[in-house]
Amino acid sequence: MRIDDQAFETLIAQFQQRVDNALDYWLQPDSINPMRLHQAMRYSVLAPGKRVRPILVYATASALGVDLEKVDGAACAVEIIHAYSLIHDDLPAMDDDDLRRGRPTCHRQFDEASAILAGDALQALAFYIISHDPKMVADDGARLKMIENLAMFSGSRGMAGGQAIDLAAVGKSLNIAELETMHIHKTGALIRTCIQLSALSASNLGETEFKALDSYAKCIGLSFQIQDDILDVTADTATMGKPQGSDSARNKPTFPSIIGLKESQEKAQELHQQALLALSIFAEEADILRYISAWFVQRTH
Amino acid sequence: MRIDDQAFETLIAQFQQRVDNALDYWLQPDSINPMRLHQAMRYSVLAPGKRVRPILVYATASALGVDLEKVDGAACAVEIIHAYSLIHDDLPAMDDDDLRRGRPTCHRQFDEASAILAGDALQALAFYIISHDPKMVADDGARLKMIENLAMFSGSRGMAGGQAIDLAAVGKSLNIAELETMHIHKTGALIRTCIQLSALSASNLGETEFKALDSYAKCIGLSFQIQDDILDVTADTATMGKPQGSDSARNKPTFPSIIGLKESQEKAQELHQQALLALSIFAEEADILRYISAWFVQRTH
Repeated sequence: MRIDDQAFETLIAQFQQRVDNALDYWLQPDSINPMRLHQAMRYSVLAPGKRVRPILVYATASALGVDLEKVDGAACAVEIIHAYSLIHDDLPAMDDDDLRRGRPTCHRQFDEASAILAGDALQALAFYIISHDPKMVADDGARLKMIENLAMFSGSRGMAGGQAIDLAAVGKSLNIAELETMHIHKTGALIRTCIQLSALSASNLGETEFKALDSYAKCIGLSFQIQDDILDVTADTATMGKPQGSDSARNKPTFPSIIGLKESQEKAQELHQQALLALSIFAEEADILRYISAWFVQRTH
Repeated sequence: MRIDDQAFETLIAQFQQRVDNALDYWLQPDSINPMRLHQAMRYSVLAPGKRVRPILVYATASALGVDLEKVDGAACAVEIIHAYSLIHDDLPAMDDDDLRRGRPTCHRQFDEASAILAGDALQALAFYIISHDPKMVADDGARLKMIENLAMFSGSRGMAGGQAIDLAAVGKSLNIAELETMHIHKTGALIRTCIQLSALSASNLGETEFKALDSYAKCIGLSFQIQDDILDVTADTATMGKPQGSDSARNKPTFPSIIGLKESQEKAQELHQQALLALSIFAEEADILRYISAWFVQRTH
């Protein structure tokens, strides 16, 4: 679809609302789900957030002409995986954060044991949704591929592995290649999944289109993280929902700390241009993905 | 198959060896997997253990005439889910255990952050295996049902929920119904999964047979836990691989602490008889499952 700035903002708001409704559906209390665990799960998943990953799922589906109803499950699954990773990353033994999305972290609001279990149960819920959601794409083989993809990119060879590299890097001096490797796993892998889950929902997508979308995903996954690091230096606590400079204060390597602020900003712009290039095989139907890439490097929170 | 005591023991040893080989295959190091995380995952999964859950998968497959190669993936998945739950249960914020299977717990051998991440990555690996393993049953729909089942029974409505109930129960006085509810979730759900994954691998299984196997699974899931509680009172540390009386010392409700040792033993026997009754629609091909039920209530470690 052809869109302008205002239409983009409206679409993003619609996607955010859409996934919040869908998440609410999957996180209803029932008599089997222990109440405190259920509350910790809901508290973390439905906390105010940008919903970047579900937006990517919906935007890719829009670009490919896939009915959004068919990717509601995928949108929920990636946001739930993201939420579980935040809960566990915030734990005292990991990043030891008290504040997340402007509210107490899960283990501060509830307790450590509930936070560990809420994360565990959320991971299971993500896989449950993709295997179970009756509205999703009817092709069982495609669904299995989605599960394989999500499991691969959220596990030791993806997101969890990236967090392990991250923890091992505290206080060490990484070079830029090592820092990129960390983020390709920690943030990039799940962002690739978002795009791929929608691509797998499109019944008639060719290999060329699939690869182009994956290249796009790799670029914006990294530019998103670079902008995060930049904002850690430049934005204030109220805007970010977490203390300003919290990463650098913990002696975590960041793009600005290794290559400087200016070069980081240039690198983010470069990745944005590469992302646009990857999309060049698509016409205006992919404009929303172009807008998202621009948004990632221009955002102020 | 018709078996005797000695054949049973041989089979169990074969199943244990078989799953250890298969687990070893899925836990090979590679350049993508961060080394320390990988080591923590291997350490916990390949720790000496009874491999009860994989044995149930293989035994059910044998009883139903399913080629064992087709359930290697399922056997690995349930053991990996079990291993991740042990890692997280042992954490300081949960049961705070130093010893597991006769060795230091994962967070004592490595560190807390690695233990949290190893558990997370193992959960993802379990789903990866079922979605990916090319040797498994060819029917994509059956595989999706397996994933749905594993996700449901390991999440907030199953194993993780049971652990939440368990933690909430420390220091409280539960009645026998509440204690059973806890164990039906905490241990029973995953044991039901073991049987169901193999049942889903059998192409020609009727609804009656499926339900009979599930009834059997429910009985032995509970009798296994009761025997665990009994052994916590009666066995010594060296035999159990964890300190004797560790559950009762932590003021955790157990079957002996609520209904007494003798009545607990009687209840376990009763469940064994019910398990045999559930299997009555099967002929001698289910003997191995009958032996397992007897083993669960007679075992001394």
